Amino acid sequence: STAMLDVPFLPFCAFLGTLGLLCVAMVGTWCQHWRGGFSLDGSSRTFNWHPVLMVTGLVVLYGAAALVYRIPNTWSGPKLPWKVLHGSLALGAFVLTVLGLAAVFCFHNSQGTPNMYSLHSWMGLGTVLLFSCQWAAGFGAFLLPWAPAWLRALYKPIHVFFGSTILMLSVASCMSGINEKLFFSLKNGTTAYKLLPAEAVFANTLGLLILIFGVLVVGALGRPSWKRPDSDSLDSHQVRDALGG
Amino acid sequence: STAMLDVPFLPFCAFLGTLGLLCVAMVGTWCQHWRGGFSLDGSSRTFNWHPVLMVTGLVVLYGAAALVYRIPNTWSGPKLPWKVLHGSLALGAFVLTVLGLAAVFCFHNSQGTPNMYSLHSWMGLGTVLLFSCQWAAGFGAFLLPWAPAWLRALYKPIHVFFGSTILMLSVASCMSGINEKLFFSLKNGTTAYKLLPAEAVFANTLGLLILIFGVLVVGALGRPSWKRPDSDSLDSHQVRDALGG
Repeated sequence: STAMLDVPFLPFCAFLGTLGLLCVAMVGTWCQHWRGGFSLDGSSRTFNWHPVLMVTGLVVLYGAAALVYRIPNTWSGPKLPWKVLHGSLALGAFVLTVLGLAAVFCFHNSQGTPNMYSLHSWMGLGTVLLFSCQWAAGFGAFLLPWAPAWLRALYKPIHVFFGSTILMLSVASCMSGINEKLFFSLKNGTTAYKLLPAEAVFANTLGLLILIFGVLVVGALGRPSWKRPDSDSLDSHQVRDALGG
Repeated sequence: STAMLDVPFLPFCAFLGTLGLLCVAMVGTWCQHWRGGFSLDGSSRTFNWHPVLMVTGLVVLYGAAALVYRIPNTWSGPKLPWKVLHGSLALGAFVLTVLGLAAVFCFHNSQGTPNMYSLHSWMGLGTVLLFSCQWAAGFGAFLLPWAPAWLRALYKPIHVFFGSTILMLSVASCMSGINEKLFFSLKNGTTAYKLLPAEAVFANTLGLLILIFGVLVVGALGRPSWKRPDSDSLDSHQVRDALGG
């Protein structure tokens, strides 16, 4: 009966890709149409790069990188090209993330605003630090040819766990960031956040779409039938019990 | 080699229980010591019930309910007492959650503040609505004795998926809620949020502890070796491939 719930992976990916592109388009539209567009002059137009780069890098591109090994084509043949693709997409996500951080630090410094005081900033920087450790450890363990097999086997479940965890933290950071930006920006007269002007409805909707994107990626990563059918993806006692039962 | 990563479930639970109680104690301390304590008069002292009830209900008690089936004792013998425990803990979490919602609506209404405009409120109410569907559907499918076996088998993976998802959404809602409350409350002189007064450090730390609690519960729920070793917890093709490989 669970076969009734089977969704084919590739159509699901096409839907997810569309949703991800929609999130990128919407965060760009929000900053361009309502927040004054983009520049590198240290003003709030410099800040505007922050949400765009974070959503594009640490949510959408990160999600694409995380899903590479769920593509059935990766399950046979040489693994190295797929590893390089996974690592390159993650590196691209990381570069956009660092630029996104640079945008907000540059904005704060040129406005004389302190950095790193809000819960959003603590959670967000923690997420980026975890991501940098994840990338470096993944590179060291899976791409360097001399990494021993026991190290790869030991580290793999940790890498998988933090892969989903970092995306959850990243989405939670986006939620608090959009929420706080709307409180900062919409506080006067008829455009106050609490009166739900068009910008607030648009950006709240963007937040919910980012949330749905993150939940779907984390759900896809955890779905047993979409995992590479390696024996090492099962606990040996589960196989034993499944056979025994 | 992955055996080196094996953590026994019960000590992990003791740690998680301590962390959960610490979160409840800290959110209570925050509201009592810095935010003026508790009352039912519609003032901000009524609002203070909101964070306490949400963290206690929708994070800590919800997490305890979610982990019931990971206790090895539940894996043999009659299932009904454990189902009743799981459903009762979830019902307790739901009651606290509804009271937590009532606190913020009562506060807004008596202050003339609109309800349901922020991204925090959209995400939070969405989480509570999902939770109410989850509880009702779980009751209907798993506790009513006349629910057919095919319905239980069909619905179980959906219930498991939304079980983790609702906790992630709940933790993300807490993050944006604590962040926005600190921006509302800390805006004057030497206690401005951006100057990181003691209250801000305390509540940011609370936020990070809630985040760690949520990540650990979701991680524990997804850990294969802690799942009830039923044959239905494996995809049949994985067992086949594990054997073939």
